[in-house]
Amino acid sequence: MIVVMKASSSQDEIDRVARRIEESGLKAHISQGVEHTIIGVVGQALSEIRDMLQLLPGVDEVIPVSKPYKLASREFHPQNTVVKVNNLTIGDDGVIIIAGPCAVENEEQLLATARGVKACGANVLRGGAFKPRTSPYYFRGLGMKGLEMLAKAREETGMPVITEVMAPRDVELVASYADIVQVGARNMQNFILLDEVGKLKKPVMLKRGMSSTIQEWLLAAEYILAQGNEQLILCERGIRTFETFTRNTMDISAIPVIKRVSHLPVIADPSHATGKWYLVAPLALAAIAAGADGLMIEVHPNPDQALADGAQSLTFDNFQGLMSQLAPVAQAAGRKLATPGTKVEP
Amino acid sequence: MIVVMKASSSQDEIDRVARRIEESGLKAHISQGVEHTIIGVVGQALSEIRDMLQLLPGVDEVIPVSKPYKLASREFHPQNTVVKVNNLTIGDDGVIIIAGPCAVENEEQLLATARGVKACGANVLRGGAFKPRTSPYYFRGLGMKGLEMLAKAREETGMPVITEVMAPRDVELVASYADIVQVGARNMQNFILLDEVGKLKKPVMLKRGMSSTIQEWLLAAEYILAQGNEQLILCERGIRTFETFTRNTMDISAIPVIKRVSHLPVIADPSHATGKWYLVAPLALAAIAAGADGLMIEVHPNPDQALADGAQSLTFDNFQGLMSQLAPVAQAAGRKLATPGTKVEP
Amino acid sequence: MIVVMKASSSQDEIDRVARRIEESGLKAHISQGVEHTIIGVVGQALSEIRDMLQLLPGVDEVIPVSKPYKLASREFHPQNTVVKVNNLTIGDDGVIIIAGPCAVENEEQLLATARGVKACGANVLRGGAFKPRTSPYYFRGLGMKGLEMLAKAREETGMPVITEVMAPRDVELVASYADIVQVGARNMQNFILLDEVGKLKKPVMLKRGMSSTIQEWLLAAEYILAQGNEQLILCERGIRTFETFTRNTMDISAIPVIKRVSHLPVIADPSHATGKWYLVAPLALAAIAAGADGLMIEVHPNPDQALADGAQSLTFDNFQGLMSQLAPVAQAAGRKLATPGTKVEP
Amino acid sequence: MIVVMKASSSQDEIDRVARRIEESGLKAHISQGVEHTIIGVVGQALSEIRDMLQLLPGVDEVIPVSKPYKLASREFHPQNTVVKVNNLTIGDDGVIIIAGPCAVENEEQLLATARGVKACGANVLRGGAFKPRTSPYYFRGLGMKGLEMLAKAREETGMPVITEVMAPRDVELVASYADIVQVGARNMQNFILLDEVGKLKKPVMLKRGMSSTIQEWLLAAEYILAQGNEQLILCERGIRTFETFTRNTMDISAIPVIKRVSHLPVIADPSHATGKWYLVAPLALAAIAAGADGLMIEVHPNPDQALADGAQSLTFDNFQGLMSQLAPVAQAAGRKLATPGTKVEP
Repeated sequence: MIVVMKASSSQDEIDRVARRIEESGLKAHISQGVEHTIIGVVGQALSEIRDMLQLLPGVDEVIPVSKPYKLASREFHPQNTVVKVNNLTIGDDGVIIIAGPCAVENEEQLLATARGVKACGANVLRGGAFKPRTSPYYFRGLGMKGLEMLAKAREETGMPVITEVMAPRDVELVASYADIVQVGARNMQNFILLDEVGKLKKPVMLKRGMSSTIQEWLLAAEYILAQGNEQLILCERGIRTFETFTRNTMDISAIPVIKRVSHLPVIADPSHATGKWYLVAPLALAAIAAGADGLMIEVHPNPDQALADGAQSLTFDNFQGLMSQLAPVAQAAGRKLATPGTKVEP
Repeated sequence: MIVVMKASSSQDEIDRVARRIEESGLKAHISQGVEHTIIGVVGQALSEIRDMLQLLPGVDEVIPVSKPYKLASREFHPQNTVVKVNNLTIGDDGVIIIAGPCAVENEEQLLATARGVKACGANVLRGGAFKPRTSPYYFRGLGMKGLEMLAKAREETGMPVITEVMAPRDVELVASYADIVQVGARNMQNFILLDEVGKLKKPVMLKRGMSSTIQEWLLAAEYILAQGNEQLILCERGIRTFETFTRNTMDISAIPVIKRVSHLPVIADPSHATGKWYLVAPLALAAIAAGADGLMIEVHPNPDQALADGAQSLTFDNFQGLMSQLAPVAQAAGRKLATPGTKVEP
Repeated sequence: MIVVMKASSSQDEIDRVARRIEESGLKAHISQGVEHTIIGVVGQALSEIRDMLQLLPGVDEVIPVSKPYKLASREFHPQNTVVKVNNLTIGDDGVIIIAGPCAVENEEQLLATARGVKACGANVLRGGAFKPRTSPYYFRGLGMKGLEMLAKAREETGMPVITEVMAPRDVELVASYADIVQVGARNMQNFILLDEVGKLKKPVMLKRGMSSTIQEWLLAAEYILAQGNEQLILCERGIRTFETFTRNTMDISAIPVIKRVSHLPVIADPSHATGKWYLVAPLALAAIAAGADGLMIEVHPNPDQALADGAQSLTFDNFQGLMSQLAPVAQAAGRKLATPGTKVEP
Repeated sequence: MIVVMKASSSQDEIDRVARRIEESGLKAHISQGVEHTIIGVVGQALSEIRDMLQLLPGVDEVIPVSKPYKLASREFHPQNTVVKVNNLTIGDDGVIIIAGPCAVENEEQLLATARGVKACGANVLRGGAFKPRTSPYYFRGLGMKGLEMLAKAREETGMPVITEVMAPRDVELVASYADIVQVGARNMQNFILLDEVGKLKKPVMLKRGMSSTIQEWLLAAEYILAQGNEQLILCERGIRTFETFTRNTMDISAIPVIKRVSHLPVIADPSHATGKWYLVAPLALAAIAAGADGLMIEVHPNPDQALADGAQSLTFDNFQGLMSQLAPVAQAAGRKLATPGTKVEP
């Protein structure tokens, strides 16, 4: 932490700041500049100290220099984390594809989609049983019944399944059905939920909040890691900007940034990022070219009949087309598509 | 809902859209323009239908025209909602002042602050027992003990108290201590929590999410209202923008917008909106001038010792100074300061 | 400037950074932290040096600590700047009101508006002769003829006039007609234009760019001040955010921030900030309560016939109503309304 | 254009709106909904009419349905525009690479870079002679001398050159040296400049403004097209968001959106979008995977000595590495790298 004093600060004010730093069990290094005196704070400073120093007379600014996250940072954990879901690995050479409907609507729809995406080469089946919806009047998911249908689809196809948990009270339940537990963008700073999924012994996928900085996202990851769960996957799904043509703006640069500053795997969700099916394929290719460890794609047998987010869902044909383009891009980026998983032992 | 057809759409495509509308139990009004054919959808269209129509060939855009919220809208509820907390009313002539520390730190600090803000004319005491914090390493509140201290401060000062609830499982508990239950910005779209506080028979204050549009905020309010709880207060606390000088950007226009499109009371929180104590007073005055029904202000006996958000807390002196400026501004805006409440019956 | 080294940086890397700093004619102060070594750069560092240091091995971050603007900063110019337009002063006790139509449409409209706003107490007449318009198909102003009409309105009413200049080649021309030359939001970083208006011996009003930070705005001001023109007024007119209800989001906190970090007068334009006439009055009151030195308001005799921005223009009645509310708010904020100017000597 | 009436609007109000539409030479189609009456406006409505209707009693909202740009839209110009620079084509199969230093610093630096990027396979040389800089104290370019050095580099290497024009008065001059004239992001809504480059008989590259929507960008393009210059290339270079890790946020989705709604070629500038050299390669690959027609990359022989934007410049080695990755990604996206141009006739 660095304290920048005002140009007009007095020696007394400088001394007072230094004293307060030392009283907090830290060391103060004073450095006299031409315009400003700068005081380096040496030691593990708590965030409270930042606020305290900011209020002292003569202080212009207090600038943190250490990154506030540790467990999520590559600096303190140089090797890539590789998450294992049965015999599927996420975060190493292979690029994984998660696909399925936005919401589980009924058994028929789910099974048809599961078979369809598996045939195209998807590795993991997605499907929402608990759905966060902007309006209370929208379809909010089948809940428990949806979870059972997911289990059935897994049994039939051998694909591991991922589904979202919204309430701390449902964490155990969802984890007992899902192979990967998803925390959605709207819950990225639902800290109670983060604590709960941090206690699981199961892979968790944490979506980026729609107005969350990369640093806040990694701090949310830190909540989960701090509880002991290191099987964590990040997912970029678009941020909120002034542009209205797309539902959100996919922050493509977040992918190489995460790979650089963190060791966690990161995948991309171009369906939610854009909200328009015809933008999904170009953004999926872009994400892999930028270094993503995988994709999450919404696929529906009949998008124009979907109960949720039909406008951003691919048909089987479109998904098949995308899959055939993905392999050469992955290869150009020094990767390959992961082999679709063999039968999962539930 | 209005369907705008592409300039190049064929008669067949137009007919097909019309047919799909009628199959959904709605009526289609076709209107031939110079460039575009427009099809009006008459009847209560579900959001799923929007997605469905968007995917039909020849369709350029589907534009909703009804507001998606009803219970929160002034159109369907023209009179102002007035929330009652004992003998204090929120949403009529009087402007109410909520004040207190960001976090309850200990009994001494809370009681000193409660007495201090009461002496200056505050109506409600605030204090966080459960604190949402960006990092897992920050002080996260005293929890249950904090609630008990709030109850004690209420007993001693007669001020009603407001405190935040973060987890659905804590709603009953928090409501048994608080006079107003707060849902924080990070939980504005924690729909499970909204459902739970909607079942309370107690006033709720819903803060605007930091990347939430006014419409999404009113839809979150709709969740609470739809559960039957009409004692709802909104709170503008700043949105996330590209500006980094302030912690957030207070959307001052949200205040007159809410007063126009909704019947719910709206207050402003300039402390969180700015993150800097020296901006709190000018923004507090601005909010009242713009028509806010009240303010929520962080006050701390020793901001430079605070365990949370000291940099944005006022001292008693500064709070006293602000209170003396508020009365004439309220009057200029056709309002007055609410009379500080007499003793509350717990 | 402070160089933060990576936790993993070697002594060699630290030495190399220090050497490069000294080679640039600056001094390096090394400060060994627990996790990071920090190197303070002492002396007037150019921005190029920042980029250079950022690229050296072992460097994590380079953080500037001096503010990049000098002439615009209160630190180096503690007294308020007061701009004089004939006998009107901007930036001292009096709050000034600029009013008039968005665009000069014809002599009749302009004179009627000038008389109307003068009768209500406005101090300065606004009116666009050169109009920046998003689309090439919109009305782009009367140009030279508009300037002549403004001169005529000034002659008749005695009010000073403000109008926008868009092209460097028009600066002399516009300045020969206007009492205050306006640089619009879209031209805030048109550096050639800034240089040109910096050479004028006339007051200039610089609007904030719609995606400009406060710091960038002050750097744009620095361009004008650096050319020798100190008669500069800033104008907050809303920034671009994700909210779509209003045209822009008025950054109300920018007003007290500018008053704190700069000595320049700052006024607010609630008409462009909101785009909706019914939000103009509450935001005008809010801006004055927050400490603005004045307002710029669009007024039109028949808003529903206006050739530009009718939806955000006040009628004379609404403007009159606003003026009567302004005086007590100004007083509550320790200010008063400026006395409408007496006859101007052209 | 569609007028949505309030739920509470009277028959009189509806009639009045219809009458005003007909008085403006347009037709009104009234459509009675369950909650709202909707009035379709048939005919070419001017934007002024929108404002006018918005102000009539009983009107809730006026929604435009036609796209405001015509010449830039694919709807009215289905074929891709292919811009020709000598024997190089931009906008067809080949992906073109523009490379060079941010600013022309001296002859040696420019020639070295020109030779270096040509050897790696670049098609066009970039280099700024007139530099827009946030602060007046930064290096602002060599001006006329820089243009001469660019001409010399073209003569020596045979590469066409692109350089920015900032002032309307310099358009002729810059066009007499450059093969492609660039309008920078800060000038995207400098409408005077757009008019001037619209009169050229030379290719123009229009960068997206940093807070500009895709629609505003196409409207800026419309200014140039409306003056008769159809040799227009768009360039996505990142938008301003709340994220601070990168200088801007590259809106990767803008690339497929432009390809869908417009016929103009679109390229990407990952150097300015990110501000960090180590993010340039992944974003360059992503842009090509998403369908961009080319790239603009900053390359410098010694980035750590650059006078501008060194932190985002690639070394020759890094640029060479990127070029070798680009070919397979282009191929995977159904494209190929354009053949480096043969000698240009100046």
